[in-house]
Amino acid sequence: MEINIEKERRELIRMYANLLRKARPFLNDPKDIKLIKEAFLFATEAHKDMRRKSGEPFIYHPVAVATIAAEEIGLGTTSIISALLHDVVEDTEYTLEDIEERFGPKVALIVNGLTKISGAAQKGGSLQAENFRKMLLTISEDVRVVLIKISDRLHNMRTLMSMPKDKQLKVKAETEYIYAPLAHRLGLYNIKSELEDLCLKYSDQSLYDEITKKLKESEEAREHFTYEFKTPLTETLDKQGYKYTIKSRTKSITSIANKMKKQQVGFEEVYDLFAVRIIFESPREVEKSTCWHVYSIVTDYYTPNVSRLRDWISMPKSNGYESLHTTVMGHNGIWVEVQIRSKRMDEIAEKGYAAHWKYKEQGDDSSEKGIEQWLNEVRTLMENDKVNAVEFLDDFRTNLFNKEVFVFTPNGDLKVFPHGATVLDFAFDIHTEVGAKCLGAKINGKLVPLSYQLQNGDQIEILTANQPKANEGWLKIVRTSRARAKIKSHLKDDRKRVAMIGREIIDRKLKQLKIKYDDKVAQQLRDFFNLNSESDLYYQVGEGIIEHTQIKKFKDHLDTTDTVKKKKIVPDSAKEFKTKIKKIRKDDDELVIGEDMDNVHYSIANCCHPIQGDDIFGFITINNGIKIHRTNCPNSIAMMANYGYRIIKARWASEKESSFISKIAIEGTDRIGLVNDVTRIITSRMKVNIRSISIESLDGIFKGNIEISVKNLKEFEKVITEIGEINGILKITRTDN
Amino acid sequence: MEINIEKERRELIRMYANLLRKARPFLNDPKDIKLIKEAFLFATEAHKDMRRKSGEPFIYHPVAVATIAAEEIGLGTTSIISALLHDVVEDTEYTLEDIEERFGPKVALIVNGLTKISGAAQKGGSLQAENFRKMLLTISEDVRVVLIKISDRLHNMRTLMSMPKDKQLKVKAETEYIYAPLAHRLGLYNIKSELEDLCLKYSDQSLYDEITKKLKESEEAREHFTYEFKTPLTETLDKQGYKYTIKSRTKSITSIANKMKKQQVGFEEVYDLFAVRIIFESPREVEKSTCWHVYSIVTDYYTPNVSRLRDWISMPKSNGYESLHTTVMGHNGIWVEVQIRSKRMDEIAEKGYAAHWKYKEQGDDSSEKGIEQWLNEVRTLMENDKVNAVEFLDDFRTNLFNKEVFVFTPNGDLKVFPHGATVLDFAFDIHTEVGAKCLGAKINGKLVPLSYQLQNGDQIEILTANQPKANEGWLKIVRTSRARAKIKSHLKDDRKRVAMIGREIIDRKLKQLKIKYDDKVAQQLRDFFNLNSESDLYYQVGEGIIEHTQIKKFKDHLDTTDTVKKKKIVPDSAKEFKTKIKKIRKDDDELVIGEDMDNVHYSIANCCHPIQGDDIFGFITINNGIKIHRTNCPNSIAMMANYGYRIIKARWASEKESSFISKIAIEGTDRIGLVNDVTRIITSRMKVNIRSISIESLDGIFKGNIEISVKNLKEFEKVITEIGEINGILKITRTDN
Repeated sequence: MEINIEKERRELIRMYANLLRKARPFLNDPKDIKLIKEAFLFATEAHKDMRRKSGEPFIYHPVAVATIAAEEIGLGTTSIISALLHDVVEDTEYTLEDIEERFGPKVALIVNGLTKISGAAQKGGSLQAENFRKMLLTISEDVRVVLIKISDRLHNMRTLMSMPKDKQLKVKAETEYIYAPLAHRLGLYNIKSELEDLCLKYSDQSLYDEITKKLKESEEAREHFTYEFKTPLTETLDKQGYKYTIKSRTKSITSIANKMKKQQVGFEEVYDLFAVRIIFESPREVEKSTCWHVYSIVTDYYTPNVSRLRDWISMPKSNGYESLHTTVMGHNGIWVEVQIRSKRMDEIAEKGYAAHWKYKEQGDDSSEKGIEQWLNEVRTLMENDKVNAVEFLDDFRTNLFNKEVFVFTPNGDLKVFPHGATVLDFAFDIHTEVGAKCLGAKINGKLVPLSYQLQNGDQIEILTANQPKANEGWLKIVRTSRARAKIKSHLKDDRKRVAMIGREIIDRKLKQLKIKYDDKVAQQLRDFFNLNSESDLYYQVGEGIIEHTQIKKFKDHLDTTDTVKKKKIVPDSAKEFKTKIKKIRKDDDELVIGEDMDNVHYSIANCCHPIQGDDIFGFITINNGIKIHRTNCPNSIAMMANYGYRIIKARWASEKESSFISKIAIEGTDRIGLVNDVTRIITSRMKVNIRSISIESLDGIFKGNIEISVKNLKEFEKVITEIGEINGILKITRTDN
Repeated sequence: MEINIEKERRELIRMYANLLRKARPFLNDPKDIKLIKEAFLFATEAHKDMRRKSGEPFIYHPVAVATIAAEEIGLGTTSIISALLHDVVEDTEYTLEDIEERFGPKVALIVNGLTKISGAAQKGGSLQAENFRKMLLTISEDVRVVLIKISDRLHNMRTLMSMPKDKQLKVKAETEYIYAPLAHRLGLYNIKSELEDLCLKYSDQSLYDEITKKLKESEEAREHFTYEFKTPLTETLDKQGYKYTIKSRTKSITSIANKMKKQQVGFEEVYDLFAVRIIFESPREVEKSTCWHVYSIVTDYYTPNVSRLRDWISMPKSNGYESLHTTVMGHNGIWVEVQIRSKRMDEIAEKGYAAHWKYKEQGDDSSEKGIEQWLNEVRTLMENDKVNAVEFLDDFRTNLFNKEVFVFTPNGDLKVFPHGATVLDFAFDIHTEVGAKCLGAKINGKLVPLSYQLQNGDQIEILTANQPKANEGWLKIVRTSRARAKIKSHLKDDRKRVAMIGREIIDRKLKQLKIKYDDKVAQQLRDFFNLNSESDLYYQVGEGIIEHTQIKKFKDHLDTTDTVKKKKIVPDSAKEFKTKIKKIRKDDDELVIGEDMDNVHYSIANCCHPIQGDDIFGFITINNGIKIHRTNCPNSIAMMANYGYRIIKARWASEKESSFISKIAIEGTDRIGLVNDVTRIITSRMKVNIRSISIESLDGIFKGNIEISVKNLKEFEKVITEIGEINGILKITRTDN
């Protein structure tokens, strides 16, 4: 690529001017502009001569990130400066101290949070997860770290096409796993949607293209429909003197894609494509009643689906979202979601957390409470920082819920939980003690078990035992990280107590056997019972898993010589594994499946059954060679987000004779001979082998699953088409396990 | 009883004056008063010297009924006159012609509808059901017949205490079975509640008394609570210049009783006891938005339970009910239901159908549509009048639904169905043809079977076959009488077609066998295959149930002599049965169970397991002697409503040694040794025999059923008390099957 320095300089100046223009509404002090300029010059100098994968000057990136932070999240000077400097420490020779000296401790703190840890992760751990934990550690000190990190990620996603395929998949997976839910949790709905849509683009390009194309094709018809829908509303709102705008919108590409996948229908059958948003201006004190007034106008013209009314004005979401949603029946049997909100509510919905500050003085801070409570949860999680980083990340994700349930204590206090939370979560939320002794609950007068999932409006009275009942199984029942942390700590205490008893028992028993208990004996005891640690030994004895009589038997095996052979434990040490990965990656920059693969140990993943023709990648397992997954495999996201360095590009060798197992789900109306038609077409006409088939029919509707073995994607798709044409078949889809 | 004629005359004049005062708002013409007076004098003359069971002059009753019709339902002159005359034809020597001559054909039509059929019912039928059908037949001509009948029933229920016990139970059962649901269906909420409460009083006096007493005791506390609850609302409503009233109310005694039974809790645990109603004055065109405005004020102060919002202003119930209900969290964790409605809506809610007429000119007639549609349903049902009366009554009751679901056609048209209606009901509602060929449906893009129960907001696309699929099994799937009638008529047509084929087959076969087919041979064929009718024979041959070869075998049995013995069919003919009942009733005006019962064949009913001490009654079965049921047996209502003349009073002989089976359900938190505690107390301490026991435990909550055999109610109640005191038992109840 030819480099045109002058052109690049002009572009950079244009970008910088744009940043200042977008930031201006948030700057109060002329000094701010000066500071931003200083940071800009500093970053430009620091990244001088560095270039991005795309070939552009590196400095474009921090400027773009700062612009996102200002324009789309509404952040101020400190954040803009930090965004401009966010890669300096990581990628240049300047240190955190340099930053602190020139821009003060606040900026340094934020930049530190944004700087990745380099070097190796803990044994068996994940560097990505560690870095993420580091970033989150600063959340409790300054939430802006996360907001800038999200801006950074958004820009990276927007410019992802210049990355190599495996890097794309890794970045995409992290985004899907953490950043999009995080943006959602912080109320950044627009950013969340854009991130998700970009993820889809890189994981399932064809679906993304299909939806984009169909949205484009249907645009005119949609506009016409929306215009007709809006007409009576605008007439009435105008007549009543409202100041308002009506925006029409469609669902995001991702939510359309999810609906298509979940309900296994085509684009045309996603029935709630339409949405309009009515945003009105009103004084703060009447905005709630105005929402209901507008609702009343909408339902004068269109019948609402009462079961889909969502009142987030009486009870805002815990990320601060306020809005009134209803779904009404438009013309021609088409559902339309109508969102009704004031301008203030809309701004909070678009810019999330940051917008709250703006309105803070004006109103009460009730909408803040949710976020504050969430930050508290995150802090609780941090305190328990001995868990490994991957587990931490997993716990953290449970805090990123979107759907919430609103429940009540016996006194009538309102509490918010993630969708799916159980009685046990509620019990631990009240008090650790109440949680540990929880037996079940009485909900609206009915007795329910620990595992009962909370429903909106439940009033919950916890029943407790005299003694704590907490046990390992409870970890599977709870949904909140708070409850999980409390159970773990309870179990740990419990384990310690039991281990102490075990230690005493061993001391006593050995004394009876006249054996002196020293390190050597301890080692032999561990080996004898095949245990990894001394504490495991004490625990098992204390708990009675190892019976006292067994200790007696140990006497006969006691080796009193001085040299005790240490049992060899063979975990694939982190270092060895790293070397192994390096070797594979070096040998095969891209795996070509089915070609020259004699010295590479690989296999097809069972979770997603890729077949020749699918988009695929390789994942280096610890003991099982390389597994080949589809890029849209449901498990891939977690793998790539945590272990991106173990991902390896892969593609199919063209035209290689092979056979792959693939699964089909069919659904339709039953008739005599239908099953036979299906099997006949697969085997006789298509000459494809059926590996298994199961079909069940109820009240004239049948559902079936078929496993076939095909040569490649083309053949598979032909089978799908042929079966789909059988009379009575209404739905046919490829399925995973 | 001493009769004071003068006092009675004064009382009658007072009652009449009251009637005129209550009727005045509905009378436009001075002629009306004259007509009413004429009817009053006519009725007084006709019922002269007749007395009610209570000893009062009979004329009190029609005057009271007319007053109810005017005051509580808001009916006009014609209805008042008809109410005054409603018993004349049935109980005096005046005929319908006399009435028509003096008061015109309209009044005569209504009085005819209100006059019972006398004499015997159809074979195996029910006179009550026949009378009910007769009354309903006039619905399609004049709905006032039913409204006056409900007034009549309300007065009878209010004065039921002077009736003998078995008559009480019969009247109560009819009321519960038909009149209360009918009042509900017609929107007469107050009357419906009063009827139900009176039913409870006569079926479960002790529960009725308990609730009444506890409501009284808690009245002061309730008033205090409601006052506190209302205060912030009245302040705000006053400040905003509303004209309104807030009524505080409790649930009806029946709904409290139902909740106690259903959730098996005590009075104190019925958690939604409180309700307030906000009734505001507003012009018709803004009343809907005013409802939402008031809702917004209520939820400013109290958190709503979003899952219990009921919007019957956007979609009124099909009986015309309009109101906005929300349940909010009051102080101290107590739920309060708040009903919000305009004065007009309130009047419709209280007076139901009649109030619609008043508002008809002012508004559109959309709220009429529901009732009109319902009357159409009733007419459809009438047309199919060959079904027997009991079956008719049963079908009719399915039209008396309270809970409704609102669903949509693919074009977006709204349709209302009773709660529990299925895809098949929807299909038949669209068209008989669509129903008969229905295979299933697509709902919101998902495939569902025929038996899928419709949910609010479903949009339903019916899938059809090429050929009709209707069959007997479908009768169990549908919920609306309309669909049931259509399926039946379809099956009948189908049967006829098959029978015709069968007839042809028989003709052909006999010709081959050289047998001449005449009435005598037909009779022998029927006897040979043990069938009751010729059409059954043809149908079974046509359908292939009787195979052709079997007809050949018949030849060997052919009796060619002239005298064919007719197979004797022994149904208990209606007359014989009547005589039997009369005999039993005469012999034992009241059964005393366990005393001098040697010549009476009786047994304890399996459905409700009465034990000595329970309130009971006897039911004369056709072949099984007398069955003893509890007065609150769930099956009793249908028996008594349809076959009241077969009810016989019964009581227990005191202190007779006997043993009864009874069932207990227990629930609680599980612990080791709990089951043993339960069985130990029953057998060792109480010396009561356990017949069966089953207990299951899940996640620490256990549920169990125990069958014990006890001497009497006292002993049974002692067992309940003792078990209830066991640590861990949270609920214990007597259960039926």
